[in-house]
Order: sequence, then C-alpha cells, then structure tokens
Amino acid sequence: MPRFFVQRNSIEGNHIRIDGSDALHIGRSLRMKIGDELILCCDRIDYKTKILSISDSSVLCEILTQSEICSESNIDLTLYQAMPKGDKLELIIQKSVELGAAKIVPVITSRCISRPDKKSFVKKKERLNKISLEAAKQSGRGIIPEISDIIDFKTAVSQLSEQDFSFVCYEKGGVPFSSVVAPSEFKDKSVGLLIGSEGGFEESEIEVCEKAGIKTISMGKRILRCETAPISAVSIIMALSGNM
Amino acid sequence: MPRFFVQRNSIEGNHIRIDGSDALHIGRSLRMKIGDELILCCDRIDYKTKILSISDSSVLCEILTQSEICSESNIDLTLYQAMPKGDKLELIIQKSVELGAAKIVPVITSRCISRPDKKSFVKKKERLNKISLEAAKQSGRGIIPEISDIIDFKTAVSQLSEQDFSFVCYEKGGVPFSSVVAPSEFKDKSVGLLIGSEGGFEESEIEVCEKAGIKTISMGKRILRCETAPISAVSIIMALSGNM
Repeated sequence: MPRFFVQRNSIEGNHIRIDGSDALHIGRSLRMKIGDELILCCDRIDYKTKILSISDSSVLCEILTQSEICSESNIDLTLYQAMPKGDKLELIIQKSVELGAAKIVPVITSRCISRPDKKSFVKKKERLNKISLEAAKQSGRGIIPEISDIIDFKTAVSQLSEQDFSFVCYEKGGVPFSSVVAPSEFKDKSVGLLIGSEGGFEESEIEVCEKAGIKTISMGKRILRCETAPISAVSIIMALSGNM
Repeated sequence: MPRFFVQRNSIEGNHIRIDGSDALHIGRSLRMKIGDELILCCDRIDYKTKILSISDSSVLCEILTQSEICSESNIDLTLYQAMPKGDKLELIIQKSVELGAAKIVPVITSRCISRPDKKSFVKKKERLNKISLEAAKQSGRGIIPEISDIIDFKTAVSQLSEQDFSFVCYEKGGVPFSSVVAPSEFKDKSVGLLIGSEGGFEESEIEVCEKAGIKTISMGKRILRCETAPISAVSIIMALSGNM
C-alpha cells in the first residue's frame, strides 16, 4: 500500500489532508481513486486511511486504523558531520537516514575545505532535506530526520556535551565504541556522534572535545574516507544498542 | 613517504623492482630520485626501501628495513555480493576494502536484474580490481583484496558453507550478528557474508542457505538499500570481532 509522510497540522480529527506534489502524485502517477487505501505517516504513527475526495492539488482521507511504527530505533542519534567536499554529504545523509539517525547537523571544523556560510547553505539544505525525506520513505522510517543549519565547531561541542552519550571519531587515537558504553546502557538515550571532514581533526579540537566529556573513538587501523566513517559508525552504534 | 603495492615476484633477495605505471608515476609525478626512500608493500609486509636506479619503465630499490603491517584485521572476511544494478558494486567494493574485507565475490541470485555472463564480466572485473587497489592504497591495507569471477548462487552457498562462520542478511527475518557469534570466537577465523541485490532473496534461497549452515541475519527493522547493507554488515562484523 502506498505510504506518504504528512505534517501534524494536516490531521484534523478523523481526517488527513494531503496537499502539494504528493496529492498530484497520488492522483496522476499512482492513479488512485475515491475509496482506495493509503498509509499516511506522522511522527512515528502509521495511519491506514481511505480516500474520500481527490484532486490534483488536494487529497482528503479518512483514518481507518492507526499503529505505532516499529522501525524507529530506541536511541536518539544525532550525527554531527564536518562538511565534506563535493556531494559526499548527500551520500552520508541518505545512508545515515536508512540506518536510523534522528538528525544530521553539518559542522564547520578547522580542516573543512568546503565552508559554505549559513546563507548560501539555505538552498543546499532544502535539497538535503529532500534526500532525507526520500531515504526515510524508502527505508520505512517513522520520522523524517531533519538536516539542520550549518553550525561552527564550538556550537557542535556544546550541543554534543548535552547528549547522554557523545563520541568523536579520531584516526590517531581513541578506543572502540564497545569499550565505552555497554549495550544495555543505550536504551532511550540521546547519542551525539561527531565525524571529521577529509582532513580529520586537529589535535587541539580533540582536546576541546575531551574536555567537554566527548569520548574519542578509534575506528580501527585502516584509514576510512570521510563518507565511510559516519556510515560505519552509525551502523556500529545501532548494532551495539540492539537496533540492528 | 610514498607507498606502493608490489607483487611477490618483484622481490629478489634484497632488491625490489617496480615496473609499469607505478614506475612512471614515481619518476614523473612524484619526481623521486636515486637515494629517495619509498615504502613497498607485499602480502602484509611493508618494505622501507631506497631507490638505486630509476627510469620511466622501471625503478630498482634496495630493502632497508621491513615490518609487518598492523592494519589487517584478524579475521578473513569474504563478501559474497549479489550483483546490484548500475555502478553500485563499485561503491560496495571501495567501502568494504576500506573496512577490511579480504575478498569480494560477485554472485548471481534469482532477483538480480544485472546478470552479466562470465565472459562479459572479465572487462568489468579489471576495473573493479583497480578500485580495490586504489581503496587498499588509500586506507593503508596490507593486501589488495581480490575481486573474483562472478559465480552462481549454488557455488556461493557451497563456498560459504566452507567458511568458519557464514551469514546471509535477510530483510524478512533472522537474528542480530551479536546473537550468533561471541566476539572472542572470531579471532583468526574465516567469515563469509552473503548480501542480496535490490530485490533481496527468495524465501527458497534463504532455506537453501540455512540447510547449508549459513546463519540468517537481520539488519534491523529499516529497509536498507542493497549497497548500504554490505557496508553496514562489514562494519558490524569488524566491530564485533574487535577490529574496529
């Protein structure tokens, strides 16, 4: 059955209204009709609905049943990703959304080559949020992970230090994930994960992280590309916490 | 210091000879000269060498010291990957080589859309082995993981059943990696990992795997793309076995 994400304000009582490109898609591409059934997802709930009326700009549905989505993990993982070059951030977003990240925050660190300012990032952010939406749909997520505004290293460290668990992956040191958190400790916790760009981190940045209580993690003895590290680290955290 | 892979037959006594494009690269691009030092890697050993003579087609080096490479994992992981569409196999090879796979074997399963025959795969294999070489160089591997000939499902199952541990990732069932092998059991063992193409596996294929002793693994409740699953699974196995 086709499945679409809807906003909270699309739901009124027992009805859900779908506007914009999704409405057009339902009527034209999927050729759905009055009486056909659709799954509409909002904030971890799947609503099984029936189409009451349909036009190119709007589809009105009646809620038949609702159920909580079981595809969300039991941790709240935010990926703080230092801006990589080219379109690598797109791959990182697609893969970390599939793997269960709850939010992705682009960060500017010392060694970032790509350093867009907040203003020029606005248009890029729109595209990145679309990639997150598509990956959320494809992988059956119960939320659309948000791609936030770009922030500086200091702000990232401050946000990371407020998470229940926070990690920074470093190629020149650190310990494995499994040695700092026991699997049973993860449940219902917030987790912050900081990953470097192509050049990794300055030693001074790692010192700042450690002072803020962020654990330095080693990803093994092989040198991972900056887009491989987040995919691998999110996988390991999800497996360790019993979510994979 | 620049680092190149060499074949075992390039080493004669205390000397190593480099031919072909690497020789040209050393002289022309890197502008190295007699007396300069190079790292030459062959089968998990790094040889620190000094250039004795140099031309566009050949570089002769003298071995100064040698040391075992510590970047190789303590498991021998072969990825059996059902042929994906387009150029996804290239991404899968690049990433799994970075993450420590020892060999990648393309497999034809029921649901493969891309079904090259052995003959037409020969040219593609050349390109794929080059991707493996580049990833091995970049990540500091001690071997160049081989991309094998394409094999059919039955042959894959037979090879997998000969490994110390073998797994098949299935989206409709199975248990987590951590529930079938304890971390301490992995050391020095061979591991076979079978991953599906876009459509995953037929139920009958999973039955064949299970009869052959291959454990069915669940990668969690989210649906992973066929190129995300191997990257994620190799990461989890490397982390579980203490190699990340």
